[in-house]
Amino acid sequence: MATNIYDIAYTLQNALKEQPEFQSLQALYKQVLSDPVAKPLFTEFQNFQMTLQQKMMQGQQITQQESAQAQALFTKVSQNPLIAQLMQTEQRLNTVIQDLNKIIMKPLEDLYTGINQ
Amino acid sequence: MATNIYDIAYTLQNALKEQPEFQSLQALYKQVLSDPVAKPLFTEFQNFQMTLQQKMMQGQQITQQESAQAQALFTKVSQNPLIAQLMQTEQRLNTVIQDLNKIIMKPLEDLYTGINQ
Ligand SMILES: [Ca+2]
Ligand SMILES: [Ca+2]
Repeated sequence: MATNIYDIAYTLQNALKEQPEFQSLQALYKQVLSDPVAKPLFTEFQNFQMTLQQKMMQGQQITQQESAQAQALFTKVSQNPLIAQLMQTEQRLNTVIQDLNKIIMKPLEDLYTGINQ
Repeated sequence: MATNIYDIAYTLQNALKEQPEFQSLQALYKQVLSDPVAKPLFTEFQNFQMTLQQKMMQGQQITQQESAQAQALFTKVSQNPLIAQLMQTEQRLNTVIQDLNKIIMKPLEDLYTGINQ
Protein backbone atom coordinates (compact mmCIF):
# COMPACT_ATOMS: atom_id res chain seq x y z
CA MET A 1 0.00 0.00 0.00
CA ALA A 2 1.06 3.59 -0.59
CA THR A 3 2.98 5.46 2.10
CA ASN A 4 1.94 9.05 2.82
CA ILE A 5 3.86 11.37 0.45
CA TYR A 6 4.96 13.67 3.30
CA ASP A 7 6.41 10.70 5.22
CA ILE A 8 8.53 9.92 2.14
CA ALA A 9 9.65 13.57 2.04
CA TYR A 10 10.75 13.31 5.70
CA THR A 11 12.68 10.13 4.86
CA LEU A 12 14.41 12.12 2.11
CA GLN A 13 15.10 14.97 4.52
CA ASN A 14 16.86 12.53 6.88
CA ALA A 15 18.84 10.99 4.01
CA LEU A 16 19.94 14.50 2.95
CA LYS A 17 21.18 15.20 6.49
CA GLU A 18 23.26 12.01 6.35
CA GLN A 19 24.61 12.72 2.86
CA PRO A 20 28.46 13.12 2.90
CA GLU A 21 28.22 16.43 1.02
CA PHE A 22 25.84 17.84 3.62
CA GLN A 23 27.89 16.58 6.55
CA SER A 24 31.06 18.10 5.05
CA LEU A 25 29.35 21.40 4.33
CA GLN A 26 28.11 21.62 7.90
CA ALA A 27 31.62 20.91 9.26
CA LEU A 28 33.25 23.40 6.87
CA TYR A 29 30.83 26.18 7.82
CA LYS A 30 31.75 25.71 11.47
CA GLN A 31 35.45 25.82 10.57
CA VAL A 32 35.06 28.95 8.43
CA LEU A 33 33.07 30.77 11.10
CA SER A 34 35.64 30.00 13.79
CA ASP A 35 38.60 31.00 11.60
CA PRO A 36 39.76 34.62 12.22
CA VAL A 37 40.97 35.05 8.61
CA ALA A 38 38.22 33.21 6.75
CA LYS A 39 35.25 34.53 8.70
CA PRO A 40 35.39 38.26 7.79
CA LEU A 41 36.21 37.43 4.15
CA PHE A 42 33.28 35.04 3.96
CA THR A 43 30.86 37.46 5.62
CA GLU A 44 31.88 40.25 3.22
CA PHE A 45 31.30 37.93 0.25
CA GLN A 46 27.91 36.72 1.54
CA ASN A 47 26.69 40.26 2.22
CA PHE A 48 27.71 41.46 -1.24
CA GLN A 49 26.03 38.47 -2.88
CA MET A 50 22.84 39.10 -0.92
CA THR A 51 22.80 42.76 -1.99
CA LEU A 52 23.11 41.75 -5.66
CA GLN A 53 20.44 39.06 -5.32
CA GLN A 54 18.01 41.53 -3.77
CA LYS A 55 18.64 43.99 -6.63
CA MET A 56 17.96 41.28 -9.21
CA MET A 57 14.81 40.12 -7.41
CA GLN A 58 13.56 43.71 -7.50
CA GLY A 59 14.15 43.74 -11.27
CA GLN A 60 17.07 46.18 -11.04
CA GLN A 61 20.02 45.86 -13.40
CA ILE A 62 23.44 44.89 -12.01
CA THR A 63 25.97 47.55 -13.11
CA GLN A 64 29.26 46.65 -14.81
CA GLN A 65 31.07 48.01 -11.76
CA GLU A 66 29.12 45.71 -9.41
CA SER A 67 29.74 42.75 -11.67
CA ALA A 68 33.51 43.45 -11.69
CA GLN A 69 33.44 43.93 -7.91
CA ALA A 70 31.69 40.56 -7.47
CA GLN A 71 34.27 38.85 -9.66
CA ALA A 72 37.18 40.43 -7.74
CA LEU A 73 35.63 39.48 -4.40
CA PHE A 74 35.04 35.92 -5.60
CA THR A 75 38.69 35.64 -6.67
CA LYS A 76 39.81 37.00 -3.30
CA VAL A 77 37.71 34.63 -1.15
CA SER A 78 38.56 31.64 -3.39
CA GLN A 79 42.22 32.09 -2.46
CA ASN A 80 41.37 31.21 1.14
CA PRO A 81 41.73 27.38 1.24
CA LEU A 82 38.92 26.86 3.77
CA ILE A 83 36.43 28.98 1.82
CA ALA A 84 37.49 27.36 -1.45
CA GLN A 85 36.79 23.95 0.04
CA LEU A 86 33.44 25.13 1.39
CA MET A 87 32.38 26.50 -2.03
CA GLN A 88 33.40 23.28 -3.79
CA THR A 89 31.41 21.23 -1.27
CA GLU A 90 28.41 23.53 -1.65
CA GLN A 91 28.63 23.03 -5.42
CA ARG A 92 28.66 19.24 -5.01
CA LEU A 93 25.65 19.40 -2.69
CA ASN A 94 23.82 21.62 -5.20
CA THR A 95 24.40 18.96 -7.85
CA VAL A 96 22.87 16.30 -5.57
CA ILE A 97 19.87 18.54 -4.89
CA GLN A 98 19.37 19.32 -8.59
CA ASP A 99 19.46 15.58 -9.36
CA LEU A 100 16.90 14.88 -6.62
CA ASN A 101 14.65 17.63 -7.96
CA LYS A 102 14.85 16.26 -11.50
CA ILE A 103 13.81 12.81 -10.27
CA ILE A 104 10.94 14.07 -8.11
CA MET A 105 9.57 16.53 -10.71
CA LYS A 106 9.79 14.10 -13.65
CA PRO A 107 6.02 13.34 -13.66
CA LEU A 108 5.23 17.05 -13.97
CA GLU A 109 7.86 17.59 -16.63
CA ASP A 110 6.41 14.68 -18.64
CA LEU A 111 2.91 16.08 -18.23
CA TYR A 112 3.89 19.54 -19.51
CA THR A 113 6.10 18.15 -22.28
CA GLY A 114 3.25 15.97 -23.50
CA ILE A 115 0.99 19.03 -23.65
CA ASN A 116 3.28 21.16 -25.77
CA GLN A 117 4.04 18.51 -28.33
CA MET B 1 20.69 0.91 7.42
CA ALA B 2 20.45 3.91 5.14
CA THR B 3 18.69 3.62 1.79
CA ASN B 4 20.31 5.32 -1.22
CA ILE B 5 19.05 8.91 -1.40
CA TYR B 6 18.15 8.63 -5.11
CA ASP B 7 16.04 5.52 -4.40
CA ILE B 8 14.07 7.58 -1.90
CA ALA B 9 13.65 10.31 -4.54
CA TYR B 10 12.23 7.72 -6.96
CA THR B 11 9.83 6.54 -4.25
CA LEU B 12 8.72 10.17 -3.90
CA GLN B 13 8.37 10.47 -7.69
CA ASN B 14 6.02 7.47 -7.70
CA ALA B 15 4.04 8.85 -4.78
CA LEU B 16 3.67 12.18 -6.63
CA LYS B 17 2.30 10.34 -9.69
CA GLU B 18 -0.30 8.67 -7.46
CA GLN B 19 -1.21 11.89 -5.66
CA PRO B 20 -4.91 12.81 -6.29
CA GLU B 21 -3.93 16.36 -7.34
CA PHE B 22 -1.55 15.01 -9.97
CA GLN B 23 -4.02 12.43 -11.26
CA SER B 24 -6.73 15.10 -11.55
CA LEU B 25 -4.38 17.53 -13.29
CA GLN B 26 -3.41 14.88 -15.82
CA ALA B 27 -7.08 14.06 -16.53
CA LEU B 28 -8.04 17.74 -16.78
CA TYR B 29 -5.25 18.49 -19.26
CA LYS B 30 -6.51 15.71 -21.50
CA GLN B 31 -10.05 17.11 -21.24
CA VAL B 32 -8.97 20.68 -21.99
CA LEU B 33 -6.88 19.63 -24.99
CA SER B 34 -9.73 17.64 -26.50
CA ASP B 35 -12.30 20.39 -25.93
CA PRO B 36 -12.85 22.57 -29.04
CA VAL B 37 -13.71 25.67 -26.97
CA ALA B 38 -11.18 25.30 -24.13
CA LYS B 39 -8.18 24.26 -26.21
CA PRO B 40 -7.59 27.44 -28.27
CA LEU B 41 -8.28 29.64 -25.22
CA PHE B 42 -5.81 27.67 -23.15
CA THR B 43 -3.13 27.69 -25.85
CA GLU B 44 -3.47 31.46 -26.27
CA PHE B 45 -3.09 31.94 -22.51
CA GLN B 46 -0.07 29.62 -22.28
CA ASN B 47 1.70 31.31 -25.20
CA PHE B 48 1.14 34.76 -23.75
CA GLN B 49 2.39 33.65 -20.33
CA MET B 50 5.49 32.12 -21.91
CA THR B 51 6.25 35.35 -23.77
CA LEU B 52 6.02 37.36 -20.54
CA GLN B 53 8.15 34.85 -18.63
CA GLN B 54 10.85 35.00 -21.28
CA LYS B 55 10.86 38.80 -21.11
CA MET B 56 11.23 38.69 -17.32
CA MET B 57 14.00 36.08 -17.49
CA GLN B 58 15.86 38.37 -19.89
CA GLY B 59 15.56 41.18 -17.35
CA GLN B 60 13.11 43.17 -19.48
CA GLN B 61 10.31 45.15 -17.86
CA ILE B 62 6.69 44.09 -18.40
CA THR B 63 4.75 47.10 -19.75
CA GLN B 64 1.50 48.29 -18.19
CA GLN B 65 -0.27 47.31 -21.43
CA GLU B 66 1.08 43.75 -21.26
CA SER B 67 0.12 43.49 -17.61
CA ALA B 68 -3.44 44.62 -18.39
CA GLN B 69 -3.57 42.22 -21.34
CA ALA B 70 -2.45 39.32 -19.09
CA GLN B 71 -5.13 40.20 -16.56
CA ALA B 72 -7.85 40.37 -19.24
CA LEU B 73 -6.73 37.05 -20.74
CA PHE B 74 -6.69 35.43 -17.30
CA THR B 75 -10.25 36.64 -16.64
CA LYS B 76 -11.35 35.32 -20.03
CA VAL B 77 -9.84 31.83 -19.66
CA SER B 78 -11.03 31.57 -16.02
CA GLN B 79 -14.61 31.83 -17.26
CA ASN B 80 -14.20 28.53 -19.06
CA PRO B 81 -15.24 25.95 -16.40
CA LEU B 82 -12.76 23.28 -17.57
CA ILE B 83 -9.79 25.68 -17.55
CA ALA B 84 -10.86 27.13 -14.20
CA GLN B 85 -10.92 23.63 -12.72
CA LEU B 86 -7.50 22.89 -14.25
CA MET B 87 -5.97 26.05 -12.80
CA GLN B 88 -7.40 25.34 -9.35
CA THR B 89 -6.02 21.79 -9.47
CA GLU B 90 -2.62 23.09 -10.60
CA GLN B 91 -2.65 25.50 -7.65
CA ARG B 92 -3.41 22.65 -5.21
CA LEU B 93 -0.61 20.55 -6.71
CA ASN B 94 1.80 23.51 -6.42
CA THR B 95 0.95 23.73 -2.72
CA VAL B 96 1.78 20.03 -2.26
CA ILE B 97 5.09 20.52 -4.10
CA GLN B 98 6.00 23.59 -2.06
CA ASP B 99 5.29 21.64 1.14
CA LEU B 100 7.46 18.73 -0.05
CA ASN B 101 10.29 21.14 -0.91
CA LYS B 102 10.09 22.80 2.51
CA ILE B 103 10.39 19.40 4.21
CA ILE B 104 13.27 18.18 2.03
CA MET B 105 15.26 21.43 2.18
CA LYS B 106 14.84 21.93 5.95
CA PRO B 107 18.40 20.75 6.81
CA LEU B 108 19.88 23.32 4.41
CA GLU B 109 17.59 26.06 5.67
CA ASP B 110 18.65 25.27 9.25
CA LEU B 111 22.30 25.29 8.23
CA TYR B 112 22.07 28.72 6.57
CA THR B 113 19.87 30.16 9.32
CA GLY B 114 22.39 29.05 11.94
CA ILE B 115 25.16 30.81 10.02
CA ASN B 116 23.47 34.17 9.79
CA GLN B 117 22.45 34.36 13.40
CA1 LIG C 1 7.34 19.93 -25.88
CA1 LIG D 1 19.29 34.11 10.51
